[in-house]
Amino acid sequence: MDSVEYDNRTVTRGALQYTGKAKQVFTTDDPNILWVHYLDQATALNGKVKETINGKGELNSAISQLLFNYLTENGIKNHYLGSISKTDELITSLNILPIEVVTRNYASGHFVSKFDAVAMQQLSPIVQEFYYKSDALDDPFMNDSQIIALGYATSDELSKLRYESLMINQRLTELFQKANIQLIDFKLEFGRTKNGDILLADELSPDNMRLVDITTGNSLDKDVFRKHSGDVTVGYHEVLTRLQQVI
Amino acid sequence: MDSVEYDNRTVTRGALQYTGKAKQVFTTDDPNILWVHYLDQATALNGKVKETINGKGELNSAISQLLFNYLTENGIKNHYLGSISKTDELITSLNILPIEVVTRNYASGHFVSKFDAVAMQQLSPIVQEFYYKSDALDDPFMNDSQIIALGYATSDELSKLRYESLMINQRLTELFQKANIQLIDFKLEFGRTKNGDILLADELSPDNMRLVDITTGNSLDKDVFRKHSGDVTVGYHEVLTRLQQVI
Ligand SMILES: Nc1ncnc2c1ncn2[C@@H]1O[C@H](COP(=O)(O)OP(=O)(O)OP(=O)(O)O)[C@@H](O)[C@H]1O
Ligand SMILES: Nc1ncnc2c1ncn2[C@@H]1O[C@H](COP(=O)(O)OP(=O)(O)OP(=O)(O)O)[C@@H](O)[C@H]1O
Ligand SMILES: [Mg+2]
Ligand SMILES: [Mg+2]
Repeated sequence: MDSVEYDNRTVTRGALQYTGKAKQVFTTDDPNILWVHYLDQATALNGKVKETINGKGELNSAISQLLFNYLTENGIKNHYLGSISKTDELITSLNILPIEVVTRNYASGHFVSKFDAVAMQQLSPIVQEFYYKSDALDDPFMNDSQIIALGYATSDELSKLRYESLMINQRLTELFQKANIQLIDFKLEFGRTKNGDILLADELSPDNMRLVDITTGNSLDKDVFRKHSGDVTVGYHEVLTRLQQVI
Repeated sequence: MDSVEYDNRTVTRGALQYTGKAKQVFTTDDPNILWVHYLDQATALNGKVKETINGKGELNSAISQLLFNYLTENGIKNHYLGSISKTDELITSLNILPIEVVTRNYASGHFVSKFDAVAMQQLSPIVQEFYYKSDALDDPFMNDSQIIALGYATSDELSKLRYESLMINQRLTELFQKANIQLIDFKLEFGRTKNGDILLADELSPDNMRLVDITTGNSLDKDVFRKHSGDVTVGYHEVLTRLQQVI
């Protein structure tokens, strides 16, 4: 498919702008709109491990679209404009802030190993971490003064990233709870619009979240791939089905 | 020497409590007072490289005592009580906070390599970093939410650490400037008194600071040891002499 009806007009796909670890991003004939295609690809260790997984693009796309719609209904501004197909969507073109925002409700992953923390302990306050998006530097963890001094974001922007992430965390935690899923932690990206607004961007999928079945304790996210412990799509499919039931 | 006159009474040295990388700490017959002995020892890479350097203990002790006295005169609360000998001093016994506070005026060391920052660029805002004091975990860099969630310090304490470090930075920068020395960065430790006050603790020496001769650009600190580029005591001696001239 090369064009789609959106907002009473036709939007046509343009050149491939970026092929990432999980998605392809295309321009469109509207400079404010990008066309995203979800790939059947899984990576771990910041891209050092890569594998094709049939059906993953469709699942991530479906989950992401469902979650962006849910956040929109709950008043959280984001880049999502609409669905094109099972793997493609339209988004607002943003100037992505070079900061990945990680929110942690429970201790898991790096947080446990780096600080020898008790795994799965509830974190209070909720932990928020900023990472500088740089493959060359391996996405280093940074604090506010470092980020501001190096000009990667302003103090105001960091406050907004913190605030928005907490609001999103609240909404997502509530929703997943209804689906009998515990939201352990997740990574977000944000971008600036032409008039300086900051919107939630990128994707909302189990690739960027840790999700655990509350009853069984099973991992329903990318940890299954990171730990080579089975077929990730089983968990992703379970997440999608349950979300569809409660939304 | 096993006892010393202090505050119109005799304080007597007790048991060895701790042998660190640079100092020995003894109890005294007063539970509120500790006896510190500076060692002729240099370490790098968090203790993985170790070497004896004659005269270093004396130089560090002299510089530290001089700087603590200077800060006291400038209203900055600290643990220093008085000198015993060229290598020994009395300090207030504190409950050391498990947080090392690093203050950076200019980009150097890890800050440059981790973020590919321009070396020696002036940092604005002044960068402040917290590291969790844990040899087993290799002193991990942490942000506020992580430290508070794991209970290593409270939000109030972190605010105080930031504020005190900035005040100390201002005073030390002024003093070193007069001695034609640039204060690049430094590491501080703080501790709690019995009634909950937070005081500057540990030592103030070129072991924990980066100092550069403003005219020649030469390193006058432990970088000389870290980089195996000469006899550190030459620089330390230079620092002491210049500080004695301007204080
Ligand atoms: N609204 C948006 N406007 C512009 N770019 C976006 C938007 N949302 C997401 N992006 C960017 O599109 C790309 C999506 O591809 P993907 O997630 O596969 O990248 P990635 O491999 O994770 O790489 P990166 O390190 O760049 O995030 C990312 O670079 C992401 O930052
Ligand atoms: N006022 C104080 N009260 C109690 N302990 C103190 C005080 N000031 C400093 N200390 C502690 O005394 C020790 C000084 O020894 P030294 O600096 O050689 O230790 P170190 O090898 O750097 O080890 P550490 O990792 O414990 O800092 C440190 O553990 C320091 O935290
Ligand atoms: Mg991505
Ligand atoms: Mg020390």
